[in-house]
Amino acid sequence: MSSATANEDCLGWAARDESGVLSPYKFSRRAVGRDDVSIKITHCGVCYADVGWTRNKNGDAKYPVVPGHEIAGIVREVGTDVHHFKVGDHVGVGTYVNSCRDCEFCNKKLEANCAKGAIYTFNGIDTDGTVTKGGYSDYIVVHERQVFYNVVTLLQENETIAIALPGFKGIPQELIVYCFTIPDSYPLASAAPLLCAGITVYAPMMRYKMNQPGKSLGVIGLGGLGHMAVKFGKAFGLNVTVFSTSISKREEALSLLGADKFVVSSDQEEMQALVKSLDFIIDTASGEHPLDPYISILKTAGVLVVVGAPSELKFKPVGLFIEMRTIAGSVVGGTKDIQEMLNFCAAHRIYPQIEVVPIQYANEALERLVKNDVKFRFVIDIENSLK
Amino acid sequence: MSSATANEDCLGWAARDESGVLSPYKFSRRAVGRDDVSIKITHCGVCYADVGWTRNKNGDAKYPVVPGHEIAGIVREVGTDVHHFKVGDHVGVGTYVNSCRDCEFCNKKLEANCAKGAIYTFNGIDTDGTVTKGGYSDYIVVHERQVFYNVVTLLQENETIAIALPGFKGIPQELIVYCFTIPDSYPLASAAPLLCAGITVYAPMMRYKMNQPGKSLGVIGLGGLGHMAVKFGKAFGLNVTVFSTSISKREEALSLLGADKFVVSSDQEEMQALVKSLDFIIDTASGEHPLDPYISILKTAGVLVVVGAPSELKFKPVGLFIEMRTIAGSVVGGTKDIQEMLNFCAAHRIYPQIEVVPIQYANEALERLVKNDVKFRFVIDIENSLK
Repeated sequence: MSSATANEDCLGWAARDESGVLSPYKFSRRAVGRDDVSIKITHCGVCYADVGWTRNKNGDAKYPVVPGHEIAGIVREVGTDVHHFKVGDHVGVGTYVNSCRDCEFCNKKLEANCAKGAIYTFNGIDTDGTVTKGGYSDYIVVHERQVFYNVVTLLQENETIAIALPGFKGIPQELIVYCFTIPDSYPLASAAPLLCAGITVYAPMMRYKMNQPGKSLGVIGLGGLGHMAVKFGKAFGLNVTVFSTSISKREEALSLLGADKFVVSSDQEEMQALVKSLDFIIDTASGEHPLDPYISILKTAGVLVVVGAPSELKFKPVGLFIEMRTIAGSVVGGTKDIQEMLNFCAAHRIYPQIEVVPIQYANEALERLVKNDVKFRFVIDIENSLK
Repeated sequence: MSSATANEDCLGWAARDESGVLSPYKFSRRAVGRDDVSIKITHCGVCYADVGWTRNKNGDAKYPVVPGHEIAGIVREVGTDVHHFKVGDHVGVGTYVNSCRDCEFCNKKLEANCAKGAIYTFNGIDTDGTVTKGGYSDYIVVHERQVFYNVVTLLQENETIAIALPGFKGIPQELIVYCFTIPDSYPLASAAPLLCAGITVYAPMMRYKMNQPGKSLGVIGLGGLGHMAVKFGKAFGLNVTVFSTSISKREEALSLLGADKFVVSSDQEEMQALVKSLDFIIDTASGEHPLDPYISILKTAGVLVVVGAPSELKFKPVGLFIEMRTIAGSVVGGTKDIQEMLNFCAAHRIYPQIEVVPIQYANEALERLVKNDVKFRFVIDIENSLK
């Protein structure tokens, strides 16, 4: 069973050079090992990371680059040791497909922060030395790894942590999976953007207890990430204010997404009126923008989380320290948060706003993404267009 | 008893204009009310805030400005309702002398972050409308306020909070004081700098659990604040690295203060070798300086606390979010932390490095402070020189 698909060709779309232009590309995935799950990809979201690596913005592109790390699909084959997934299950794969499984962060299911570095879903180097290839392709192989040990639980700083006893092969107690169950009721196309855009805003909101009704949330920027922050905020019972440079987003923010307030960030009077009013701000803006006006809007001990990637940000320390405020960074989320988010979205019927496009539209989709011309996430219909 | 000192003249040194030049100045303190404590000042530390307000750097100087908010002295008189202090007690006064006593922060004894604004020890507006005058003077009057209520304790987010029942005058259960007991064994001159420099680094170290032995601390800058951070770090059992722009601080850092490591921040090789190695950095530098090299030195989920006041700081968000790091602001500390710090310093014999000077040296001391020419804190011997 394991070797049957070893040399099967995988069809994807890849960029060959810094032009970033994508075109069809055939390659091999590894054979399905004992603890592997092979997934027929039905949908893949289009993330700005796809632009970044296909155009070598980070200087480390390993061409050919098959982008895509918002993957939804259906299990097509499982290894002999895989028990948690079966053929036909709906699953998702996010921004990483492996991690060391042994460091303090992996042990806390914060694998995105793995001490040895999470292995990214594309343009990463997997443990077998191959370059990972992403979701603009017809299938992918990822690990399900059951951890065999005699679990010792300790209460450390109010967190239960499991300690493995080396050498002891006990009953499988823990499952570290790099793919996630998408509840049957949840459309696969809608699930795709949750695996990066969704978790990137969900994880810091959970970390800072922004799922407590009545708290106030600010969202800077209304793209793939920002619009999900608004949706999560409303689902959590928060009072949500959207900040945008453009008045054109007003109706979408208020009517379509249900935000409570919309503020054009250049309107100094409106900004001034909000001073010390918000518990938490999630900053999804990727362009250069001033931080001080937003810092001043935070309550005492408020937190601004940066998840966008402008090249540089500036702030006046006085705004931070007088009010004991915090600027925090966050990147996607761990496997535990991802599964919880998928379950939460299914239970509360939270769906990203998506525009489904064929793979043949991928280059134009990336170009439009660069221009912020998308409402709010492109999802490639891999199943019906990649042939 | 209360009215006896109402019109007694108080002798201080004040700045009259933006030159900031200090000279003798007589003024009145308020009469000692029922819940007031009058303190004969023996020592006052020289803080950069003294420069800031005497020279109107913040644009809000209310001349004449009597600076000084690192005050140590001896109780000389108490109001009829004061029970916690008695004449002859050694006490300190820090950067604030009052707060609303009623907001969520005052209720948590985080009075420095009072929602209505803590009333600063000098250049502030007290509840009676007068401008507060600081410790470059021979005495000061501050509140002891016993809170009378039937205490209801609630467990909220793992914190016990006390809720007052309005109108009920019960047994005094809580004491909010704006002066602090200095243990008898602790020299008053040494206590003075703890009230601002000390608490400014102690409070964020406690907030981020940096009193746990074995953790690693970085300290940027080795002035009044920085040198106390090193001392607290060593007392807490931390591994302490000092960063300075000047190699000249090396011996002081290692031999005098007991730091484990000293790094010249311009040495890129040494900085590179430290990447992802520290749990926490406390940034006391007031000049412009790059943040990114320090952010990169933080471990995953590490925290950099800004307590210095450069006009602006810059950082690359990617360094913050990939490793889930945090930049936090902090300002002095609440009454609970201040008393704990004083007790801790006495118990562990932690003393600031001070240079004791007469009040007649105040102008030169401020000038030398501006030039960073002090090891490590000037303390004015008010008792023996202010006449």
